[in-house]
Amino acid sequence: MSAEQRQNIPLTVAGRVFSSRLLVGTGKYRDFDETAAAVEASGTELVTVAVRRTNLGQNPDEPNLLDAVPMSRYTILPNTAGCYTAKDAVRTCKLARELLDGHNLVKLEVLGDDGTLYPNVVETLKAAETLVNDGFDVMVYTSDDPIVAKELERIGCCAVMPLGSLIGSGHGLLNPATLEIILGNAEVPILVDAGIGTPSDAALAMEMGCAGVLINSAIANARQPVRMAHAMKLAVEAGREAYLAERMPRRASASPSSPFAGRINA
Amino acid sequence: MSAEQRQNIPLTVAGRVFSSRLLVGTGKYRDFDETAAAVEASGTELVTVAVRRTNLGQNPDEPNLLDAVPMSRYTILPNTAGCYTAKDAVRTCKLARELLDGHNLVKLEVLGDDGTLYPNVVETLKAAETLVNDGFDVMVYTSDDPIVAKELERIGCCAVMPLGSLIGSGHGLLNPATLEIILGNAEVPILVDAGIGTPSDAALAMEMGCAGVLINSAIANARQPVRMAHAMKLAVEAGREAYLAERMPRRASASPSSPFAGRINA
Amino acid sequence: MSAEQRQNIPLTVAGRVFSSRLLVGTGKYRDFDETAAAVEASGTELVTVAVRRTNLGQNPDEPNLLDAVPMSRYTILPNTAGCYTAKDAVRTCKLARELLDGHNLVKLEVLGDDGTLYPNVVETLKAAETLVNDGFDVMVYTSDDPIVAKELERIGCCAVMPLGSLIGSGHGLLNPATLEIILGNAEVPILVDAGIGTPSDAALAMEMGCAGVLINSAIANARQPVRMAHAMKLAVEAGREAYLAERMPRRASASPSSPFAGRINA
Amino acid sequence: MSAEQRQNIPLTVAGRVFSSRLLVGTGKYRDFDETAAAVEASGTELVTVAVRRTNLGQNPDEPNLLDAVPMSRYTILPNTAGCYTAKDAVRTCKLARELLDGHNLVKLEVLGDDGTLYPNVVETLKAAETLVNDGFDVMVYTSDDPIVAKELERIGCCAVMPLGSLIGSGHGLLNPATLEIILGNAEVPILVDAGIGTPSDAALAMEMGCAGVLINSAIANARQPVRMAHAMKLAVEAGREAYLAERMPRRASASPSSPFAGRINA
Repeated sequence: MSAEQRQNIPLTVAGRVFSSRLLVGTGKYRDFDETAAAVEASGTELVTVAVRRTNLGQNPDEPNLLDAVPMSRYTILPNTAGCYTAKDAVRTCKLARELLDGHNLVKLEVLGDDGTLYPNVVETLKAAETLVNDGFDVMVYTSDDPIVAKELERIGCCAVMPLGSLIGSGHGLLNPATLEIILGNAEVPILVDAGIGTPSDAALAMEMGCAGVLINSAIANARQPVRMAHAMKLAVEAGREAYLAERMPRRASASPSSPFAGRINA
Repeated sequence: MSAEQRQNIPLTVAGRVFSSRLLVGTGKYRDFDETAAAVEASGTELVTVAVRRTNLGQNPDEPNLLDAVPMSRYTILPNTAGCYTAKDAVRTCKLARELLDGHNLVKLEVLGDDGTLYPNVVETLKAAETLVNDGFDVMVYTSDDPIVAKELERIGCCAVMPLGSLIGSGHGLLNPATLEIILGNAEVPILVDAGIGTPSDAALAMEMGCAGVLINSAIANARQPVRMAHAMKLAVEAGREAYLAERMPRRASASPSSPFAGRINA
Repeated sequence: MSAEQRQNIPLTVAGRVFSSRLLVGTGKYRDFDETAAAVEASGTELVTVAVRRTNLGQNPDEPNLLDAVPMSRYTILPNTAGCYTAKDAVRTCKLARELLDGHNLVKLEVLGDDGTLYPNVVETLKAAETLVNDGFDVMVYTSDDPIVAKELERIGCCAVMPLGSLIGSGHGLLNPATLEIILGNAEVPILVDAGIGTPSDAALAMEMGCAGVLINSAIANARQPVRMAHAMKLAVEAGREAYLAERMPRRASASPSSPFAGRINA
Repeated sequence: MSAEQRQNIPLTVAGRVFSSRLLVGTGKYRDFDETAAAVEASGTELVTVAVRRTNLGQNPDEPNLLDAVPMSRYTILPNTAGCYTAKDAVRTCKLARELLDGHNLVKLEVLGDDGTLYPNVVETLKAAETLVNDGFDVMVYTSDDPIVAKELERIGCCAVMPLGSLIGSGHGLLNPATLEIILGNAEVPILVDAGIGTPSDAALAMEMGCAGVLINSAIANARQPVRMAHAMKLAVEAGREAYLAERMPRRASASPSSPFAGRINA
C-alpha cells in the first residue's frame, strides 16, 4: 500500500466532467419507454446510440430516440456498431456529427466479424487516427491487448474501452490479468465496454481501477431491466468507493476477526 | 426463467425483520470510534460481537462496545468466535444471554483449528442442537457442505451461514457450486459468513440468492474502513436488486446490442 | 523452494505398495469386456467395485466382474456406493469381506443424498471408526473439509479421499484451496476421489501433491473409454513427475526465454 | 457429440510431419548439456532457438547450440525473440536462413514492449506478410485475438501460435474462451506458445484441440528441468489422447458411478 491515498477525482472525458461512471446503451429494449425508464434508473449521464441502427432524426416519420433520451439531459455518445471497416466507421461518425449539429464525441467500434463482434484492431487503429485528425473526441472499443490499448492512447483517443468478454455474452471479465496491465499503463480513462453480465462484474471492473463501465445487454436483457439498471448504478458506485477505500490484502491463511491479545476468558 | 417473478420479501430471522441485508462484525478496528463510524456507514441493523474477546460489560472499568454500538439502535448478535468445542460454544452463548438480559439470538461458531478457523461441523451440529433445545435462536457459521447445511436447518437453526473462503482471507467465494446447492435446498435464510474481500464478492453472493452477507475483515482491514463499509452497503443492495431483477442469460457467442432487423443504412 | 528435493517414494496404502497412482472404478461401462479393456489401458493396480451393485459372486448364475477384472492381477477395492447410513456402509463392508475371503481393504463412502452424492461426513466418521476398530483398512471418500479429513486420519483411515467436485459431474477440482490445506496437514495418502473430468484435472491433482486419483465416469463416459483410460494413465504420471520436478514459480510479469546478457547483435 | 470420431492425423507444418506435438525452447538452461538433456527428455522433434541471442555459428570460437541440439536429429525453428519491429524480425529471419543454409521454417515474434513481451500484432501482421512473400514458412506468435489469428492464417502463415498468458509467467491459459474461438475458426495448426506453467496447463491446451504447445520456461525453470521435460511429454500425449477420445459431458448434478437399475440388495 503506497503512502498516498487514491484521489477521488470525477470522470473527465474530452473535457466533459461526469459524476456517474456508468455508461449505458440503448439497444434491445422492448420500446423507447422502457429505454427511457432504464436509462433514468441507471443514473447515467452518457448514453451510447448505434447510429446505423437507431433513428436520431434520419427518418423524420418514425419515433426518434432523442425524444426518449433527450440531449438536454444526457450526453449522447454516437457509436459505430455494425461497422466492419475503418472507412465505414469514419463515415458513420461523420453522419452522426451532421445529425447532432457538430457533436464531436463518438464511440468508435470496428468489428472483426458478426459471429464474435470482436474488434478488428488494425481497422480500429486506422479509423481512430483518421477521426482524431478530423477533430473528433474518440472513445474507442478495443480488445484487451495492452499494446493496442496504449497505441490508441498515443494516437489521441480520449478514452480506451477494452472488452471484458464478447459483446452481449454476459460472461464478465474473462481475463482480469490483461485488464490490469492496461490499467497499469494508462494515462487516459479505461472503461470496460463489453461482457458485463451482473453487478458483481461491474463492481469488479471498478475495484480494479477502471474509470467506468458501459453496459447494455445486461440491463436490457434482464427480466426486469429498470430494476437491473438501478442495481448496476449501485454496483458501479460500490466498486468506485472500494477502489478509493482500497481493499484488504488477501491472506493465504485465516485471520480471526478479533485480536487474540486481550482475550477475555469466559 | 420461470413464470413467477422473484418476490421482494424482507430478511426475516427468528421473527425479526431487517431491511438491511448486510451484517457486520466489530473486530480489528483501530478503536471503538472507528467501529462505530464503520457500523453506521454500513447501514447494518445486525452487528455481531465476539463475546469472549469483547467487553460487553464483563469488565465494568473498561470501554464497553455497547456504548459505541448501542442496543437501542442495533440488534446485537453475540458470537462464539474462539470456541473449539460444542461445550465452550454453548457456555459462551449462555454467558451472552446473561450479559444481554435474556437476549436469545446468537451466532454459533465452533472452530476446527486456529490456523484455518474452518468450522468443526461435528461439534457445530452438537452445539446447535443443544442451543436450539435451550431456546436460543441460532444463526450458524458452517462450511459449504450442503448435507451439513441442511442438517443444521433440520435441527432448527434460524439461519445457516456457510463460508465463502477462510475467515479473514478475503478470497471471496471459492466454490460457488456448493453454495448454489445449499441455496437450492434451503428453507431458512442462507448468509455468507466468511471470506468476502470486496464489494464484488458481496454482490455475487447476493445475486446468487443469499439472504445476506456478514463482513468484518474486508471493512476493518481496508485502507479506509468507513468508506469501504459504505461500498459494501451499496454492493449488497446492488446484488439483491440484481437477484430480484434476474440477470441476462449467458451466451456462448456475441449478441449485438441492437437488432439487425430494421437496420438503417448510413 | 526448500533445500530438500521431493522424494520419489511409491504409493503405499495399508502396507501394500503400488507403482500406479491411478485408481479406477468399474461402473457405467457398456459391458464387462469394455470394463476389462479400460481397466487394462489405465495401467491401474487398484480397482474399486460397488459391492451393492455389482456381482462379485453373490449371484452365481450371472456374469461375475471378477472374471473380467481378476483378483490375481488387480487389488480389488470394494466400496459402499449407495449407502446412506453408517450402519449400511458397515454391513456392506462386512459382506465384501465375506465374499472376498477376508479381504480387509475397503473404500468407505456414506452419501448424504442421491441428488448430490455428497458425503454425509457425520455418518462417514461413525462408520470409519467402527470399521477401523473391526480391523478393516479404510480408504475413505469425504468432502474437502480439512477438519473432517484430519479427523478421519486420526481415527486410523489408511487413505483420505476428498472430492474434487460432485461424483460423476466432471467439473474437476472446484476448490483447490481446501485441497491444498488438506495436503498440507496430511500424514496419510490423500487421493482425489470424485469429479475428475479430464486428464488436465488429474494432472493438476497430482501436481498439487495428491498421492493418487480415483476415476470412473471420466473414463467410462468418454466417447472412447479405452483411449481415455490410457490418457488418464499418462496424465497421472505427468502430474506425479511434475510434482517431483517442482514447477517454475509463477511470475506477475513476463520473463524472456533467453538471457539478455550476452545478447548477440544481428 | 457428432457422428464422426475425431481423426488421429499427425501434426503437419509446412509439409513436415511430426509425431511429437511438444515444441521446446532452448533459453534459460544452466548450460548446453542441460539443454540437450531436457530437449531429449521432452521427446520433441522441433526446437526453437532465439537467433539474436544464441550462437548458431555466428561466433565460431564460442560453444554452438547446434552441437548440443544437432540439426541431424531435430528440426530447428529459429525465432525472432527480442525483435520489436517488423523490420528487425524480417532481418533476423533472413540471417537465420543464411546461417542455416537456406532453412525456411521460422517462428516469427514481434514484441510490443519488454515489460510484457506481449506481441505487437500490427507489426506481426506486417512481418508475416513480408516473410510469406519471401518464401518463408512462418509459424507465428500472436495474442489470443481471434480476428488477428484468422488474418495471420489468411496471409499464409503455416501455424498460428497464440499465447496462453505472458511469456515466462507460468500462468497457464488465462482465457480459454478466446482460444476456443480461434480453434473453432482455424484451418491451420494452432499451438499455444507462451504461459504454460505445468503439465496440467499443457494437457488442457491439447484437450481443447490445439495441435501442439511450445514450452520453454516451465521446463528450464523447474527445479529438475529434465524430469519436467519428461512430464510435459506425457502431458501433451495425455491431452492429445483425450482430445481424440472426447471427454465426458459435464453434469450440473451428481451421477452415480454404477447404474441403480439392477441394484443388488445387501
